Amino acid sequence: MSSQSTENLQASFKNGDLRALTRAISLAENKEASVLALLAGVFDKVGKARVLGITGPPGAGKSSLANLFVRFLREKKKKVAVLAVDPVSPFTGGALLGDRIRLADHFNDEGVFIRSLSTRGKLGGLSLATREAVHLCDAFGFDYVLIETVGVGQSEVDIRKIADLAVVVLVPDWGDGVQALKAGILEIGEHFIVNKSDREGADRVVNELRNMLQISGRPADAVSSCSTHDVPSVEKVFSSLENQLEHDKAAILKKREASCKEMVGELLSERVLEETRNWVQKNVANPKNPYAWLTDFLKANPLGSLFK
Amino acid sequence: MSSQSTENLQASFKNGDLRALTRAISLAENKEASVLALLAGVFDKVGKARVLGITGPPGAGKSSLANLFVRFLREKKKKVAVLAVDPVSPFTGGALLGDRIRLADHFNDEGVFIRSLSTRGKLGGLSLATREAVHLCDAFGFDYVLIETVGVGQSEVDIRKIADLAVVVLVPDWGDGVQALKAGILEIGEHFIVNKSDREGADRVVNELRNMLQISGRPADAVSSCSTHDVPSVEKVFSSLENQLEHDKAAILKKREASCKEMVGELLSERVLEETRNWVQKNVANPKNPYAWLTDFLKANPLGSLFK
Repeated sequence: MSSQSTENLQASFKNGDLRALTRAISLAENKEASVLALLAGVFDKVGKARVLGITGPPGAGKSSLANLFVRFLREKKKKVAVLAVDPVSPFTGGALLGDRIRLADHFNDEGVFIRSLSTRGKLGGLSLATREAVHLCDAFGFDYVLIETVGVGQSEVDIRKIADLAVVVLVPDWGDGVQALKAGILEIGEHFIVNKSDREGADRVVNELRNMLQISGRPADAVSSCSTHDVPSVEKVFSSLENQLEHDKAAILKKREASCKEMVGELLSERVLEETRNWVQKNVANPKNPYAWLTDFLKANPLGSLFK
Repeated sequence: MSSQSTENLQASFKNGDLRALTRAISLAENKEASVLALLAGVFDKVGKARVLGITGPPGAGKSSLANLFVRFLREKKKKVAVLAVDPVSPFTGGALLGDRIRLADHFNDEGVFIRSLSTRGKLGGLSLATREAVHLCDAFGFDYVLIETVGVGQSEVDIRKIADLAVVVLVPDWGDGVQALKAGILEIGEHFIVNKSDREGADRVVNELRNMLQISGRPADAVSSCSTHDVPSVEKVFSSLENQLEHDKAAILKKREASCKEMVGELLSERVLEETRNWVQKNVANPKNPYAWLTDFLKANPLGSLFK
């Protein structure tokens, strides 16, 4: 992309042209170098949006909840961007796409922007692209950014680092007695929603989660339950999320600052990684013993002096 | 780890001490720099083992099949290493551990080595550690290395690149009509086993997979079906895998060579990445605008000259 067209894109973006936002997110998704100038140019507008992360196992009802959250926000005239993060999962990828269709309720609403993010074969994974997309939506002027992702390992997208508030959606019949697993869940979420609360066992899961939070010195009211068949119950849960966002404002600001420093590491790493692979591709012949090759290389090129 | 103890480890490893193998795999898993010298020192012994990758959705019966494969190989006095790769998946992690227990059949057999691999919070993911573990088992003298992994995205462990033959295990009730998903599966597997063939729909899935392979110009006999309740059916499938390994020998050698060059890129990238993160951690203050920071940094430090 030429610097001329980058400038044009930036101008359209600042004029509120949704196509410019879509184009910019594609650049981030495809790791195009030109997105950097755009992001640098609009970053002073970042910081107004609330960023809500929604994660959980497939089938927990994340999209249905997101759908209702969008409705509540639209009733208050808030502009909402929904980023649906699709990690490349060949065995479970289908369900996510199916879920997405429910968000079609809002397809004709100009105050709602829905975008799927996925990368395939690109270095660096989705984490950085997701963060960039959040910044783009925030700078564009959305009041809320909802990030929806299936939980397929923290390695892919660390929702807790990207969102102001990371919400884990669970269902009652989930994980009977898998305490170790639940401990893992605790690390991911800052709020827990037990969805499908009309099913048997919902109260038990709520209580278990509350106990586990209390044991680790965290507030038990970070667990709520609802059913998407009972809209007021979801509305109540959403209010408590809004309260938590309001209440934790100072902590959220601190988190965002820490995330800026972390981003520098990620942004630079991504470029260095690409450079390294290109260099190897061009300059290294097929070695008989790759481990011996690296040992020799590191002796000749101590990495400690990569940056001056 | 001191160079003295690295030498001791290498000596014990070459003497066939299983504890040395276990220790070496732990070093690889934890990305300890000292594993590099060991791998460089034993790499001339790598290349004799057959490496079979087994992947598929949770519940497809991968561990039960692996269990039988081990039995068949032991009947022929072959030594087998089983590497069970556990990606950190907070929502599905539990099932894998449960499956693993079935392999206990072979726990008292000296010709069988079973090891789980998992990383948490370490850079570079599991892919490189898995490859290193395979090389260690191969150099140690195992005739077969079985790698079992749940499919949670190609990003985590690219089984097709690591194994001589990547086998995808599926079940009849899997993915009705999700053609797009199946196309993704085709890219991962070099052989497809429809397990639980006594269930309804097994023949249909077998035929669908065969048709899809034929459309993409690949041999239809790379699909087989069996049921672990019917041991001879599994034995027949395993024979066809052995035949495929034998038949594709030249292609496998080529694949291994290509993988050596790729490894150099991965090995170097991993170290460069760590160096970059450490450098940022020490030298970069919290920037107001991380994107502008990177733009300025790249102007002052063109990455094109990272390596001379």
